[in-house]
This record gives sequence, C-alpha cells and structure tokens, in this order.
Amino acid sequence: MTTTRFRSTEADIDGLYHELAEHELQPLWELKGLLTREPAVAGTPFRWRGDDLRKLAERAGDLVPVDRGGDRRVLACCNPGLAGAPYAVSTLWAAVQYLRGHEMAPAHRHSPAALRFITEGEGVFTLVDGDPLPMGKGDLVLTPSWTFHEHHNPGDAPMMWMDVLDLPVVAALDAVFFEEGASEEADTATAPASASERWFGGGPGLVPAGHETPPSHSPLLAYRWADTDRALTAQLDVSGASSAKLRYSDPVRGGDVMPTMRCEIQRIEAGASTAAFRQTGGRVACVLHGTGRARVGERVFDIAPGDIIAVPSWSRWQFLATSRLDVFSVSDAPVLEALGLFRTSEG
Amino acid sequence: MTTTRFRSTEADIDGLYHELAEHELQPLWELKGLLTREPAVAGTPFRWRGDDLRKLAERAGDLVPVDRGGDRRVLACCNPGLAGAPYAVSTLWAAVQYLRGHEMAPAHRHSPAALRFITEGEGVFTLVDGDPLPMGKGDLVLTPSWTFHEHHNPGDAPMMWMDVLDLPVVAALDAVFFEEGASEEADTATAPASASERWFGGGPGLVPAGHETPPSHSPLLAYRWADTDRALTAQLDVSGASSAKLRYSDPVRGGDVMPTMRCEIQRIEAGASTAAFRQTGGRVACVLHGTGRARVGERVFDIAPGDIIAVPSWSRWQFLATSRLDVFSVSDAPVLEALGLFRTSEG
Amino acid sequence: MTTTRFRSTEADIDGLYHELAEHELQPLWELKGLLTREPAVAGTPFRWRGDDLRKLAERAGDLVPVDRGGDRRVLACCNPGLAGAPYAVSTLWAAVQYLRGHEMAPAHRHSPAALRFITEGEGVFTLVDGDPLPMGKGDLVLTPSWTFHEHHNPGDAPMMWMDVLDLPVVAALDAVFFEEGASEEADTATAPASASERWFGGGPGLVPAGHETPPSHSPLLAYRWADTDRALTAQLDVSGASSAKLRYSDPVRGGDVMPTMRCEIQRIEAGASTAAFRQTGGRVACVLHGTGRARVGERVFDIAPGDIIAVPSWSRWQFLATSRLDVFSVSDAPVLEALGLFRTSEG
Amino acid sequence: MTTTRFRSTEADIDGLYHELAEHELQPLWELKGLLTREPAVAGTPFRWRGDDLRKLAERAGDLVPVDRGGDRRVLACCNPGLAGAPYAVSTLWAAVQYLRGHEMAPAHRHSPAALRFITEGEGVFTLVDGDPLPMGKGDLVLTPSWTFHEHHNPGDAPMMWMDVLDLPVVAALDAVFFEEGASEEADTATAPASASERWFGGGPGLVPAGHETPPSHSPLLAYRWADTDRALTAQLDVSGASSAKLRYSDPVRGGDVMPTMRCEIQRIEAGASTAAFRQTGGRVACVLHGTGRARVGERVFDIAPGDIIAVPSWSRWQFLATSRLDVFSVSDAPVLEALGLFRTSEG
Repeated sequence: MTTTRFRSTEADIDGLYHELAEHELQPLWELKGLLTREPAVAGTPFRWRGDDLRKLAERAGDLVPVDRGGDRRVLACCNPGLAGAPYAVSTLWAAVQYLRGHEMAPAHRHSPAALRFITEGEGVFTLVDGDPLPMGKGDLVLTPSWTFHEHHNPGDAPMMWMDVLDLPVVAALDAVFFEEGASEEADTATAPASASERWFGGGPGLVPAGHETPPSHSPLLAYRWADTDRALTAQLDVSGASSAKLRYSDPVRGGDVMPTMRCEIQRIEAGASTAAFRQTGGRVACVLHGTGRARVGERVFDIAPGDIIAVPSWSRWQFLATSRLDVFSVSDAPVLEALGLFRTSEG
Repeated sequence: MTTTRFRSTEADIDGLYHELAEHELQPLWELKGLLTREPAVAGTPFRWRGDDLRKLAERAGDLVPVDRGGDRRVLACCNPGLAGAPYAVSTLWAAVQYLRGHEMAPAHRHSPAALRFITEGEGVFTLVDGDPLPMGKGDLVLTPSWTFHEHHNPGDAPMMWMDVLDLPVVAALDAVFFEEGASEEADTATAPASASERWFGGGPGLVPAGHETPPSHSPLLAYRWADTDRALTAQLDVSGASSAKLRYSDPVRGGDVMPTMRCEIQRIEAGASTAAFRQTGGRVACVLHGTGRARVGERVFDIAPGDIIAVPSWSRWQFLATSRLDVFSVSDAPVLEALGLFRTSEG
Repeated sequence: MTTTRFRSTEADIDGLYHELAEHELQPLWELKGLLTREPAVAGTPFRWRGDDLRKLAERAGDLVPVDRGGDRRVLACCNPGLAGAPYAVSTLWAAVQYLRGHEMAPAHRHSPAALRFITEGEGVFTLVDGDPLPMGKGDLVLTPSWTFHEHHNPGDAPMMWMDVLDLPVVAALDAVFFEEGASEEADTATAPASASERWFGGGPGLVPAGHETPPSHSPLLAYRWADTDRALTAQLDVSGASSAKLRYSDPVRGGDVMPTMRCEIQRIEAGASTAAFRQTGGRVACVLHGTGRARVGERVFDIAPGDIIAVPSWSRWQFLATSRLDVFSVSDAPVLEALGLFRTSEG
Repeated sequence: MTTTRFRSTEADIDGLYHELAEHELQPLWELKGLLTREPAVAGTPFRWRGDDLRKLAERAGDLVPVDRGGDRRVLACCNPGLAGAPYAVSTLWAAVQYLRGHEMAPAHRHSPAALRFITEGEGVFTLVDGDPLPMGKGDLVLTPSWTFHEHHNPGDAPMMWMDVLDLPVVAALDAVFFEEGASEEADTATAPASASERWFGGGPGLVPAGHETPPSHSPLLAYRWADTDRALTAQLDVSGASSAKLRYSDPVRGGDVMPTMRCEIQRIEAGASTAAFRQTGGRVACVLHGTGRARVGERVFDIAPGDIIAVPSWSRWQFLATSRLDVFSVSDAPVLEALGLFRTSEG
C-alpha cells in the first residue's frame, strides 16, 4: 500500500484541521497517548503519614468549626500526580475526618458510596438511615450509596477516622446526586449494636429468613474488629502461612460489600512480606497496627499506624512487616471486574 | 363440538387398548389423577417422638453392630403415607443415627447430600473430606454431595443425632452414585475447630480473600449453636416480635447451604405461635428445645425435644410454644425455586 | 473394631424390628439398594416406531372423541421398565397427540411444563395464554408451566405431534397444580406469526427494549423449522464437521427455554455418527428426518422419521446416520445442573 | 451547636491551609461542587451533521493517508463542553472512520471496546480475531475489548461509518492496554457470512450446543440490517404503537452485547415522537433513515441521515419524526447498572 497519491500540502492539511475544529472534530492521527501499551496511569505512589494526618486534623479541629462548609471536617488526600484533584488515586477519594467531643456532622446522602475505617479512638457513632453504628478501632463502617448518614460524638474526646469514597468514578460517570437530610437527635443511650448488626451480624452463614435486603449493597453495615481479628488469627492458624487476607463481604448475597469498592484486610507476621502484585484499578491502604515497609511501584515507604497509602492502577505493591502488620485496603476491583477490565499480575 | 360421528363399539375400544398396550402406550383419557387441581401429596403429616427415637436407637445400639450393613446404625423415619418407602416426606430422608462410645462409621461418599442436626449430646466428630467437625447440641453439620464423610466417637458415651438427606430427589432423578472411602485414623486430639470453620467461620461477612470455594455448596460445613443462639436472640431483640427465624447460608456466595436443601431455625417464645403457612415441597422439622404443639394439615401434635415432624408439600403448618421452642427444619425449597415450582400461601 | 459384644439373638432382633415398624421406622442396615455405585436406573432403553404411533393415533382418532377424558387425544409412551407408569423415561412424559380436522382441545393450564415437537403435517395452532402459535413440521412450540394452552385444528386434515412434559419431576416434588380455562373462539384468520414471535423472534440477538419478560421461561414460544434448518446448515458449513447440534434458548436471558427441560436438535450427515455419550438424567429423542441407528445402552434401534426414543439416565447413546438424520431431543439436564447432580461421560 | 469557641484568625487558617498543601491534603470545606444536587454534567447536547461528517471525511481521504498516525483515518467528535477532550459525551468516544478503495487499516487490539454502525455504503469488511465481517448499511459490527481488528476495503469505492468506543470509561479507570497485531492478507473472496454469524446467528433463540463462548461479550459480532428491519416492523405490527425499540443482545447469555455499552435502535413513524426521557450516563445516537427533530436538554436539532447526536447524562431527550426515523444509539447504561448508579426519569 503506497501513499504517494496523497499530494497534500501543509496548507491543505492546515485548512482541513481548521475546518475540523470549526465542526468540533479532531483528527485521530494527531491525538497522541490515547491508546497506550500499558495504562498511562494518572496518580503516583504516595503515602500520607498517620502522624501528620493526626496533627493536622487536630489543628483543623482547633481552628475550624465542623459546619464551616460541607458539614464535615475532612482533610482530603490529594495525590500529587493528579494535577490538584482531591483524590488519593484516580478512582478513589480518601480522607481523614475529625470530630471533636459533642460535635455532630449532620445528615446527608449522596450517590457516591462511602466507608469509614477507624485506626484509633472510639465514641463516635454514625447513623445510617437512622440506625446508630458505634465506631471503634479496627471497625469498618459502611454508608452505601444514597443512604442518609450523620456522625455524632456524644463524648468529650475527639475522634478521627479514614473515609473512602468512590466519588471519582461516580463523578466520571456524571452520576453524582446529593441531598441534605433531617438530622436526628443524638441518642447517647443507643443500643450497643446497630439494628443492621442484630439482623445480619449473628454469625457466619446465619441470615434472617424472609427479611428484605437492600438492592445493591451489604445489609450488614458494620464489621467489628473483634470478629476480624479472630478471623485473621484463625486463617493464619489453619493455613500455616505468614500472612492472612480477608475480604469483607455481603453476608446475604455474597460478594463485595458495595458494587464499587472491595474491602480487604491483611495481616503480615513480623519478618514476613506479601508477594509483589498488581492489578488494574486503584487502591487505598491504611495501616491499623504494626510497622514495616510498603513498596509501591518504584517507591518504598516506611509505614506506621494511621498511614494512608495510594497504590495507583497497575503499580506493583508489596508489604514487608517489621512488627506484625494489619493493613486495611479498599480497591475498585468490583468495577473493573463488572466491566471486563480486571487484570492482575504477580511477581 | 359433537361426538356423534364416533360410532365405536366397546369391542373396537378394547381392541385399540389392547394394541396400545402391546406397543407400550397408554391412552391419556383413561389415566386418572395425573393432573390434579392441587398437589395429590404423597405422604401424610406425621411426628416421630424424640423419646421413642432415643429408646429405639439405644436398643439398636445394644443389639446391632454399626457395621452390620450400610456401615451406619440408622433408623429411617418412614412416612406412613408413602407405601413403605423409607422417607420422612416424599422428597426428604430423615433418620436418627446412633454411635456407641469408641465406634466409628467408616468413610463413604454419595451424590445425595446429607446434613446432621444434633439435639443432644456431644463427643462425636464427623470427618468431611478429612476435616474433623466436632458435633455438639444445636449444631448443624453438612456433608455435601460427593464429599467423603465418616463419624468417630472417641469417647465412652454414645451419641445420637438426626440425619437428613435429599435422597428421594436424587433417586427420582436416577442420579445416585456411591463410593466407599479409606477411613482415617481417628484423631482424638483434633483441633477444637475444623479447617472449614477456621477458613470460613471467622465472623459475619468475613471471608478469606483468594481462597477457592467448592462449586456448589457452602464451604462452611458446621454452624455452631452458640452463634445460632446469639443470632436468634439478637433478632428477637431488634424485631420486638415473639418469634425469630434464621436461614443457614453460604457465607461466600450467599444463598442456601446446598442446592437441594434449605436449612432454617425458628425460635418461638412461650405463649406465642407462628402464622399458618404452606409451600410446595416437603419439610422435616426437629425440636431442639421447648414444648408446644405443631399443627400440620389436619393433625395436631404435642411436641417435645428430639421430635421429628414431617410436613408434606402444600400442607399448612404452624408451631405454638408452651415453653420457648427452638425448631430446626429442612425443606427442599431450593429445588422448587430453581425449577420455577415454588408456591407459598399464608394463613 | 469388634462386634463380639453384640450378643443379640434372632428373637431380640425380631423384637426390635417389630417395634421399629410400629413406630414407622426402618433399620437402614436392612434396606438394600438405596445407595448404589452407579444410578440404579428406572426405565430401559426403548423406541416407539413412528409408523406405529401414526397408525394407532389415527385409529384413536376414528374411535375416540377428543373430549372423552382429559380433553386431549393423547397416547402416552410407557417405558416398559417403569412398572406401568405412563412415562417415557423416569423423569419425562412423552406422547403423541392427535387432532382431527375441526376439532379442538380446550384450554387448561398446569404447573408441569410442556412442549410440542411436530414431525409431520401442519394446520393446527396452539393458543398459549391466548397467543395463537401455528404448528408446522420441524417446529418446536412451548407451553410453559402455568400458561393456558389449547389446540385448534381449523382445517380438514388431522394432525399429530409429540408432546413432552416434565410431569414426572413435578409429580415427584408434589407440586402439580391444574386449572381449566375458558377456551377462545378459534380464530382461523389468525396472524401468520404469534405475538410472541413478533416481539421476540426478530432475529438473533435482537430483543425488544423495555418489554417485560416472563419470570422463568423463554418469552419466545415457537422456534421455526426454517430458522433451525438454516442454523444447522450454517453450523455444518462453519465447523466442517459431519454433525451439528443446536440448543434452543431463551433469547432474552440466555439459557434453556424452560427451567426443567433442555431442547436440542442434531443433524448427522449420511454415513456419520455421533460420539457415544452419557449423562445423568433422562432424555427423549424424536426423529424428524432421515434413517439410521440409535444405540442406547445395550440396545440398537433402526430409526426412521417419527420414532420416539427413550434414553434413560446414565445410558450411553449414539446416533448413526444412513441418510441424513435430524433428531430433536429433550432432556432434564437443567434440573440436574441446578441441583449440582449433572455428570457426563464421553466414549 | 455553637462555633464561638473557634477563635481562629485568618492567619491561623492560612497557616493551616499552607501546611495542608505541603502534606498533599486539601480541606473539604473549601472544595466546592464535589457533591451536587444533580449531576454537574460535563459535556453539552450537540449534533454533528452527517453532511459535514461525510464531506470532511472525504477531504481527509484525499489529503491524509490511512497510516499517518494511529493507523486509522478517523475524525473524533469532540463535545464542545468537554474542554477539548476528544469525546462525544464524557463517557463515550464517537467518530467517523473513512477508508478509500483498496486501503486497509491494520490489525491492533485494545482494552477499550469498540463498535461500528454503518449509515451508508458497503464493501469494507472488518476482521475480528481473523473472522471477516462484511459491513453494510444499517449493520452493527462489534470489536469487543482486546479482540484484534482490522478493516479492509477491497473495492474501488470509499466507505465511511461511525465508531463508538468506551474509551473515556476505560481511561478513567486507568485500564487502557494496546497491542499491534499482524494484519492478514485481505481475503476478497471471503464468505458472505462470518464464522461468528454462522455459529451464533442462526435465528432467534438458536445457539450452538457445547460451543465455548467468549467470557464477557456477545459471541455474535455482526447484527444485520435485514434482521433488524424485520424485527422493527414486527414490533410495530404487534404493538400497534407508532414507535418500536430494540436492544441488541448476547444470544447465548442474554443481556447487553458488551459489558460497557448498550446498543439500541428505534423506529419512529412519520408524525410520531418518543416520550421525553432521561437517564444517568451518556448516549450517542446516529440517524440511519429519515428526518425530524431531536430535543436534547434545552436544544432542538433538525436531524437527517448520518447525523450524530450527543446526549449527556441526565439530559432529557426525545425524537420527533417528520419522515419515518430509524435511530441507532449507544449508551453506557450497563456500567451504571452494574455499579448501582442507574437512574431514569420519564416526561
């Protein structure tokens, strides 16, 4: 195939390009970087130190009222590779939220789904559609898409936790909806377990018969550290391996807790490490216990409790434990899987 | 439409019928009872008393060795409406199994799935594909289709439990396979929890990440009474109702524990009763705790711990508690649902 | 393990057995043949000759009015291995139905699902929930569970076809329901295609947007020979093989046309044969075109158009074509698959 | 709740913000527009005229060889509301591709899925993993994620068609992979139907038995206008309505043709219109036949064959036919549905 017949001059081409632009068209052959051999990943490996997050959150607690804007005192992790977008990786929002004693963050709901993971403290409870979920260290609390949620701190001590949202994905799909709610009187004499947990948290494989469940997320809204710790211990015991990994799942339908986010927790014994691994889609990890190192792409981070780590798509990552590590993480793997775009690679 | 043109004589008809029979054909118009307005249910409401079952099982234990035939000392509940077939209802086998101290029932496997529910005692453990599952009062233990299973009683005391199998369904489908296995040395120093439970029983909604699960049944093979009891208590607490009902489910995929049998447990507070209810397909119930009455169709049975109750298809049933009742039951509802044949009716 | 401690006498044992019988119990160890190494298949390989079926159906047409009983003039294939049960194999009813000119078989519905396969003739139409489906040679017509159906023959010529029902399975599950309907005036000027076909039969992969479909069966109720023939031809062409095999499927949800029966058609070129194959569950085959032989288990049948062949569970079967064979068949494979009981074996 | 205790000065706040920025954090309360009451939709209603697209494509054909860059002579529709991004709506790429006689666009594959819809001409064929798919007016041709595809024009006449890709979604998920392939010798004596069509295009509900299908897209890769036209005609006939709508579906599994794009076609009779409708997620429509008007959001476009119309997320849209309209469209509805983010609103 020869192209000799194409005797176009620069002026011809310029004229064509000009006219294309006038008609809101662009020539593909001038567009570079659309289809890359491997993902041209937005975002970079990064780590926010737990110590910094705590200090800055406390300072924000001193200086800024909870209702100054957005009704939440939240510091968003902004991946330096994302050109100022307030996202930890290109598909996940991660942040720390801080609530002083006797403060409340009032009710609202939004189509982006959120979850909270608590790395220290206790005392706040989150109401999800009116159901009070106490929050404590190591707990995972879900506020699924379009559920009203509010946070109350009836005690004196401030509390901080990590928020993760699928906001970048929902925004990219032009599907963000938001509504303010009517906050309830904080019930400081609330039951020790939420209704959600009393219905759906009885035990492994025990679900209420004939009780309606929500259409697209786990009906169990809180996963308690005592259970998680026991399950990690049991898995290490039965496998004889030096690390264990759990997935948080919907106890009724099976599968991930929400259609956009997969939640996992790993325990790595002191001296051990996980195999290097990568997958399409982003991940945010958060250290609950222990110290060690996280390799992400070409970066190596010393890690400690409260650290938040950004693992961009297709970046190799690996944890090495100096002391026994418990690391919670969230990925958008269910999105990639649903769309036939999930790839993994080991080593 | 007139039939006057049909001038057939009795002799003509007889000749036709004779010739049809010779060709292995039958005239539909002479077949009665094939398509009935409502199910022409095989089997009748029935109740086997726990006291009788215990005494007869003990006597069999005195008289008959475990290896006399079938390698199991089992008394099968034979519904008097089933013309001698050894089934509790037309689609479910129910039986009591009895193992003296230091006896074992050797390994085998079969395509019919089985489960064990324990109404008293402890000390036996069942090995499922080599995984030792201790059996105790109130526990449900699964031996799914085509898993090797054997029962060991390392202690001195005899033990008895209820077996339920989907054998009638599998037999009706001409799909029974059976194989003997190599029994393992009884490990009386077995771990307090099975590998199955350590992998899959960590807590509600907590499942191992990346661990293969079996293709068509729950990977969790034992459901412990302590969990069940706590879940029933929590459900009564949250619902404020006078009865609670749980379904045993697959913690990884959701749904029933096995494709042919649904397992449920109900707690009915003293003085309360359940609503009358019926469904297509059979059910076998077993009283764990408490006393009261069971209405099944036109029959009313006084019930007590250890009783086994047959609820035939489309028979109304209802429990009334004199003292607090805990009733376990098994139905073939997953079969009816999968085939589009499940119907229910309340009241 | 020794049994010397069991010093029971015959009298002891007899006494126990007597008492067990009084309590509606049977000792497992005296029950033989419950759990067999391979399926103890009820039913035997068999073949009903198309010629016989036609002659006997015609004779029944002469002698017996359609409304003599059951409102259908149907001759049921009775497998000689099934002790008189009117079933072709233990899980499937097969029969020929015969309608003289100007006769009608009035409307009714039942929970057992039915299908019609036509090996000769035309002119009758079946109304399914009022939708008229013309029937012609090589067509498959569905009357799914609980749909009203009636057959009209507005012309002068009689017509015959094969009926297959899942009745044995539904009866074994005690789930047979039946209701008579109000037959419609036969509309002899009916549209050439049913509403079902106009909605769902547009072409491969083309389905109406936003049109509700029935919950558990294909919304397409007729599969026309012209399409089937073309698809078989195309498959032979593309594969280069000497036989082709199609599955009839639900065009909207995919999968089998009904939850209890899988419909397939095979074309085997003259001189070719299919590989020997067996599977759990029963099958009924019906020859549309061609001649050859069918091996089923230990039997070999010469086959010709209109023949109906019973393939019991786990029996090896194979077709050999003398002239090009088109063979339609129905199996209960979806039932076995749904229950985790499907096994196959080749060769 | 009072905020009087917060005595922060501007300087304090500035200091905090400065330190947050240094730690790659942003205060949520200063981020505006993240959570909007309704989607803050990127992109605007727009229409590219078929006449313009044809003329500009022809001019590009005269001036630019097919291999100048990207190996495709493609003009990308650039929604003027997307700040220069070459996308028709924020989640879909749409473009026209132009191939002169005797040109070829060589083989490559990419994780973004593509489809082609042809509004005029014929003669080109697309090879998908080596299977030649002839392209003609009104046809839909799929090149699913990660399938090699190339376009050959063996004739003298040039040809143009519309490409739609899910590229914006795959790019947002950082999951773009690309690979060049080895182009095959153009086989101008190719079979009139592709292997894909001979295997899977036999007729409605007819699928090959036992033939493996691809994991996450329709195995049928071409949907022919003759079938589509017949199905639209039949639907209008059966419904008695003035418009008909089809969804292109996977003939084996049911559901959409690819996990990221829903393909539909509507016929609106002259003088009729569709109901106003909106949904989350974007849509690209393309006029095949007829003239009329498209209302999209606040805009009204006169439409004619070859026009491409951008319908952004949550924008109301409606077609009004002056002469009978056939309009093909693609949306990302399967993505929104899979993630629990699909909302619709009529009127």
